[in-house]
Amino acid sequence: MAEKKADQFSAAVNCPIRQVLDRFGDKWSILVVELLSHKGRLRFSEIGQHIGDISQKMLTVTLRSLESDGLILREIFPEIPPRVEYELTPLGMSLVPQIESLTNWGKEHLETILHNRKTYELRQKKKITY
Amino acid sequence: MAEKKADQFSAAVNCPIRQVLDRFGDKWSILVVELLSHKGRLRFSEIGQHIGDISQKMLTVTLRSLESDGLILREIFPEIPPRVEYELTPLGMSLVPQIESLTNWGKEHLETILHNRKTYELRQKKKITY
Repeated sequence: MAEKKADQFSAAVNCPIRQVLDRFGDKWSILVVELLSHKGRLRFSEIGQHIGDISQKMLTVTLRSLESDGLILREIFPEIPPRVEYELTPLGMSLVPQIESLTNWGKEHLETILHNRKTYELRQKKKITY
Repeated sequence: MAEKKADQFSAAVNCPIRQVLDRFGDKWSILVVELLSHKGRLRFSEIGQHIGDISQKMLTVTLRSLESDGLILREIFPEIPPRVEYELTPLGMSLVPQIESLTNWGKEHLETILHNRKTYELRQKKKITY
């Protein structure tokens, strides 16, 4: 019984936290939330330009997920051509510190990680050669 | 110039932080790090069993990436059949607080998010009907 309880942590497929992690546990969502936290309000095309290498389809899916979760607000201005802008909701803003702490960790350990990758690659090559 | 500088944040494709986020900014890496932080050492099959819905191929890729980045250590025991175990390195352990803060945020706001999703879905259906 105790064993079973210890197993119920966030990685388990049936754990409710997975329903959240399945959504914002991807780099595009993380990047969009971070971008909007820096820029305030942005149009669809501006978000795409800032991120650079995201496809239009993936950006549409990401924004729709974030909107559906209540993390961003989508506002349509009835102009010609119609203008659509996105901004963080208070809920989205409450996620920013967590994301910043994750990216700060990344910045802090970037050099170590890149060095580790190089060493790993060399070790793999050596394994193949000999 | 100031405009250009303000644009250099983590979402930009050429920003070095992306090299890190491209790797651990996915739910599988997050789940494996969290799992190992709870369980200590685990075998390949045990990790798969705990996560539940990860394919063998995706688990292999995830573990290899985490090993290459120096976040986990892979140890092979020369037994028959050979036993392979994984555990967090000190670098991997240093990522745990960030991940826990992210999953804690998820736990805290889970109900709101699920409610938002339901409302969003209903609104979308309404749009189609009328």
